[in-house]
Order: sequence, then structure tokens, then C-alpha cells
Amino acid sequence: MFAERIKNLNSSFIRDILAVTQQPDIISFAGGLPDPALFPAGQLQEAGERMRQRLGNALYQYGETAGVATLREQIAANLSDANTGPENLLVTTGSQQGLDLVVRCLVDPGERVVVEGPTYLGALQVLRANQAQLLSIASDADGPDLDALETLLKEQPIRCFYAVPDFHNPTGACYSLRRRQRLLALAEMYDFWILEDSPYSALRYRGESLPSLHSLAPQRVIQFGSFSKIIAPALRLGWINSARPVIKVVEKLKQAADLHSSGYDQQLVLQFLLDGCLQPHLERLREIYGERLDAMASALERELGGALSFHKPQGGMFIWATLKRQESTLELFRSAIAEGVAFVPGEAFYVNGEQENSMRLNFSNSSIGMIEAGVTRLAGLINVRLHQTCTAG
Amino acid sequence: MFAERIKNLNSSFIRDILAVTQQPDIISFAGGLPDPALFPAGQLQEAGERMRQRLGNALYQYGETAGVATLREQIAANLSDANTGPENLLVTTGSQQGLDLVVRCLVDPGERVVVEGPTYLGALQVLRANQAQLLSIASDADGPDLDALETLLKEQPIRCFYAVPDFHNPTGACYSLRRRQRLLALAEMYDFWILEDSPYSALRYRGESLPSLHSLAPQRVIQFGSFSKIIAPALRLGWINSARPVIKVVEKLKQAADLHSSGYDQQLVLQFLLDGCLQPHLERLREIYGERLDAMASALERELGGALSFHKPQGGMFIWATLKRQESTLELFRSAIAEGVAFVPGEAFYVNGEQENSMRLNFSNSSIGMIEAGVTRLAGLINVRLHQTCTAG
Repeated sequence: MFAERIKNLNSSFIRDILAVTQQPDIISFAGGLPDPALFPAGQLQEAGERMRQRLGNALYQYGETAGVATLREQIAANLSDANTGPENLLVTTGSQQGLDLVVRCLVDPGERVVVEGPTYLGALQVLRANQAQLLSIASDADGPDLDALETLLKEQPIRCFYAVPDFHNPTGACYSLRRRQRLLALAEMYDFWILEDSPYSALRYRGESLPSLHSLAPQRVIQFGSFSKIIAPALRLGWINSARPVIKVVEKLKQAADLHSSGYDQQLVLQFLLDGCLQPHLERLREIYGERLDAMASALERELGGALSFHKPQGGMFIWATLKRQESTLELFRSAIAEGVAFVPGEAFYVNGEQENSMRLNFSNSSIGMIEAGVTRLAGLINVRLHQTCTAG
Repeated sequence: MFAERIKNLNSSFIRDILAVTQQPDIISFAGGLPDPALFPAGQLQEAGERMRQRLGNALYQYGETAGVATLREQIAANLSDANTGPENLLVTTGSQQGLDLVVRCLVDPGERVVVEGPTYLGALQVLRANQAQLLSIASDADGPDLDALETLLKEQPIRCFYAVPDFHNPTGACYSLRRRQRLLALAEMYDFWILEDSPYSALRYRGESLPSLHSLAPQRVIQFGSFSKIIAPALRLGWINSARPVIKVVEKLKQAADLHSSGYDQQLVLQFLLDGCLQPHLERLREIYGERLDAMASALERELGGALSFHKPQGGMFIWATLKRQESTLELFRSAIAEGVAFVPGEAFYVNGEQENSMRLNFSNSSIGMIEAGVTRLAGLINVRLHQTCTAG
């Protein structure tokens, strides 16, 4: 009844469990959501008024497939990547669409694409929907295990490596400069593309920014950016940053896929940028999210330091915690819901569901009070289970 | 360097020529654009204020992949198709995205899809991007030549038939009831899907509405609708109307493709509908576009009746005119630009560029004065060429 290409396509486990975790009495660390209380609603309203005055009825007409040119200029200016001008950018419906369009343009069915285990679930969905053959390598706090990657590369060529170098989803890791450079050297030597997904890059709470993979090797790397985490997800705006030959091909596919992304939302974000609202808003997000990260890390250390381990990230929205005992976090998840606290069980982020004893904890969408209460609920549950098993043993 | 699936993908000839035809001294009948002067900007501004008050910051958060539930309820109510509830609808980024998602879910590479010759160029782009094998059949003022379709069907099975039954782009034709019924009977007998593209259905200026293909055979037909032509294209909102099994699969692909369409734009259109603005706006569009259609048909008859023939449509945005002589409208197009008038040469709308002596004339985006002046320019050109050839002969 349906086409072969969608046979492997599953609905996102995360989206499925979000329904459960949205009950009002549950403290949810499960979603990957920004805090709606921090959306710059007032500034967007003012930007909307200015935009309507400036553009009149033209605001509502069809637009360019690549996206509003002035918006692309603003994005290029914000990226301050010497290799990126507006002609290297294409505006997409969230970075998710950028990923889908680029994979459709680059990867034939059956071609090998390497991801980290664990990795972003939405990337797995895109790669499966486009019939890539998925391979995964382990990663640590400094990024992917490149010895493992090189072993794979010596066996057979690959088409792409999917990377989340800044505040990885789900692990929170930031690839070290050394790891970045070696990954790019491998891409050059073994001739593959790097898909650099950067939705969290601007959400750094401490430490120094590292150069993006794209800025280090613009001919090898296709970068994906997003306004979802730094302005508002409902506006569904992201971008592809790439060398011209790729942009030209993706633009043709984008034209077939939806003609262009919302012109209204593009103009709204453009006005917000022109009004100089982004930098002060980012500073506010960094301050508040940074405090929440600290609060969650301290609470986990204090209440669960004996039962789980984690590397505290320098930015992003997630802490990735691993139980010291080999216990299924999927089972733990069911009990946790009953106790009024939610997280995402780690196996959702693996190609084949390996490593069952990790969990992703989101700290951006809960107040410090909620974070502390949620960790206490979680600790009660994990420590009781620990005790029960010890007694039973 | 790129994937096989995009090898056949061309940029839209129409989008390429739009750049040329947008010079201010050119009267353009080329685009497929609504008139921006008629966009309901004031009502959308008021709807925006009400929406922001109603939703607060929640307006800007991630939303459901299928689209805002209340918007789907409103669309279902407006369709008044007994087979369509909100659960049969999925909101897309324009109907163009609906078409792409559904073809990705239904058509494997190399599977046969039948279109009319001529047909909507954006559908050809989607089908090529998804590696369908394209076949075309002729059509007339009552719709596709179903004898030709049946001949094809007897040779080999097909996967889909792509139909634009109401005010076809580019021909303006409205399939007769008899043709609709026979097409559906063929779909049942030979087991294929019908993709019913209905962006113009609400733009009927005279005559009685006919039942949609979907309403006659909801298990066989996947229908595509759009707010682009009746509210505003920049908001990029359309929908898929289909039986649940298809919606469920498309929803999974949509999640991978872009998570969901703009929540902001969906709420804006929803508020416009809740405010009761759509029906009065449609009445205004029908009145003004209907007068423009009359003006263009009269001018063509008066000034070019000897040189070209056309069927006056009952709605939509286009007149499809065919030169009585076998002369290339692509060549004519180049001279027309020099004379300050533009249209789309007919060959753009064919799978293989057949029939070179037709042209698509848009009447929705020019005032009556511009329509008359443009037809006069065109008549001068065509009549001079006719005279030159007669003299030369």
C-alpha cells in the first residue's frame, strides 16, 4: 500500500511520551523544549507592528525559495563565519527541514551514514525516511570515538557523518578542537560529507566558543542552524549554511518540497534581528538556563551521586546521566511517571536501542524549584530500587 | 556528488521567468499570483491581536505534527464533506508540501504516475524529485481524456493519477461530473490512487459547484487544499484530506520532514476563520476576479479572436489560449517581453514539452485596465507576426 522508503519510519518515541509527560502534576525533564515563559513575546509583537508598517500588503505575497534576502544577510552577519555570505544560506522550516532536504540531495538509498550512539532522534528519522544505511560509533565527553570511525572507513566508504558538535543532543558534549580537526582530516582523506547540526551553539553558559566545523572546512561541511531554541519554535525557521553547489541543488528540491518557508515568519524574525533584540535576549537565556543547569547538576550530585554518573555540559539544554548499575531506564521511566517525574530513556537515541541504563534530562523548561523537586522524586525512586535490589540480592 | 533522486530535478521555468517579468514596465500575465492589493491585511492584523491575547506565550511553543486541532476542525467544517473530520486532515506548508509528502509515502522510484498534458508544473517537479515514471494524457474542456487513460491502464498498472478537477492550472478546465465518475470507476477497477489538487475550488465565479473527487470516493482520493489563493500565500498553509491510514503514515514522514508547519501562522489563520472573515473575503475575491476574467476573455475575443482560441473558464486564475497557427509561444514570449507584456509559454506545462503553440494567461493579478492594455500589446505583436508571415508566404 505504501512506498518502500517509509517502511522503516517510526514515530518519535519522544513525541509519543510527551503526551504522557504533559499531565500537569508531572515534573517533566523529558521534552527538548525551551521555556515558554522566556519567549520574547513583547518584542515579537512590536517587531510585528513595525514589519506590517514597513511592508504593507507585500508581506503576504509569495517569496523567494532561498528565503528573504535581507534575513539571509542578517544570519550571515550573526554567524561571523568568513566563508558564509547570504548566497551560502537557504532558509528552511526549522533545521529539521534543512536536514531532510540535504539528505534527500546527498544520500542514495543504501548509502552508509555514520551517527554517534547516542544521537538526535530526529536525525535518525530523517536518515531512515531516506533509506540511508545507519552505522553508529560511540562517543565521550570530547565527542565521537574517531578511532572507531576510522576502522569503519577502512572497511567501506561512507557518504556522510552526522555531527552535533556543540552541546550534543542528548549527551551535552562539546567536541574538543582536536576532535574537530581530526574529524575534518578524516572527511578529507576518506571523502565524505559532514552534516553539522548546530541548534544549541548560541546557548553556551561557560567556557570559550570553539570554531564550527563549517568555518574550518566549508567545502566538506553542511551546517544547520535554527531560531527555534533562541527565539521561538512555533515560527519554524532554520537555515542551511553551505558551499554554493549544494545550496543550488537544495534550492531546486526546496522549490518542489514547499516553494518556500513562511514569508510572514521570516519577516517577523528579520525585524526582531534588525531591532537588535537577539543579543540581549540571548544573554537573558544564557543566564537563566545556566542557573538551571547548575541547579540540576548540583541536585543530581547531591542526591544521586552514588547511583548515577554524568559530565556536566557547558551549554545546551540536556544532562545525560548513566546509572552506575546495569538497569533499564525504560522500566525506571514507567515507575518515574507514577512518581510524577519524567525523563527520556536512553535507548530512544540509539540506532538499535543499545545502552539501556542512561537517561536524558532537560533542564531548560523547569524552574529551579521544579528541578530540585523533580530530582528528589527521581532520587527517592532510584534509591528505593537500589535498596530493594540489595535486599533481594 | 549528489543523490540519484535529484538528477531529474529542474528549477521551475515559471519561477525563472518571473524575475524577467517583474520589471515594472511589463504587464505580466505570467505569474500564478493572487493580487496583493486584495490581501485581507487589516483583518489579519486584528486576528493577530486577538490570537496573541488568547494564547499568550504558548503561541510560540512547539506544536502537534498534524497541525493545530482547532484549525483542523475549522477546515473540516468549511469543507462540508461528510467523509472529512479533523482526524482526516493534516496541515502542511502550502499544498505543495502536501503533494511532496504524499508522493514520498505512496510512490516508489520507477512507479508510473499519470498526469494531464498540460498540468501543474509544481506537481511535475514533485513527481520527478521522487523518481516517479511520468506518463501524460491529453485533456479538453471537460477534463482528462479517459479513453487514453484506460488504454494506458490496460497496458500496465499505475500508482497514481494526478488531477486538478476545479479550474485546472493551466487550462482552467473543470472536470464534468460524468468525467469525475468515470475517473473514480477506473481507479476502483485498476486499483490506483487519485491525487486531487484543489487550490482553486473556492474561486468559482459562475456555474454550480461539483462534488470533489474526495467526497465521491474517500478511500481512493487524497485531496490537497490551500489557503494561499484565498487568504495569503506567505503564510504557506495548506492541508491534506484523506482516509486515516494515509494520514497516519504521512504524519510520521511530516515529523521527520519538519516536525510541524508554523504554529504562529496556523493560529493566525484559525483566528481569521473564527472571526468569520473568510466568507465575506471570498465573496469579494469572486466578484473582482470574476470581473477580471470577463475583461480578459472579452479583450482576447475582440482583439485576438481570429488568431487564437480558448475556453472561458468558470473560475480560477488562468485562461489557456492556443494559437490557431502552429507557432512557438516560447519564441513569441521573447518578443512579448520586448513589447512589455508577459505570459507563460505552454510547453512549460508538459512532461516532454509538447504543444508549443499555447500560453497561460493569468488574470487575477492585473487590474481591468492593465488586462486590456496587455491584451492590446499582445494583439499588436501576434497580428503583426501573422501579417509578416502572410506577406513572406
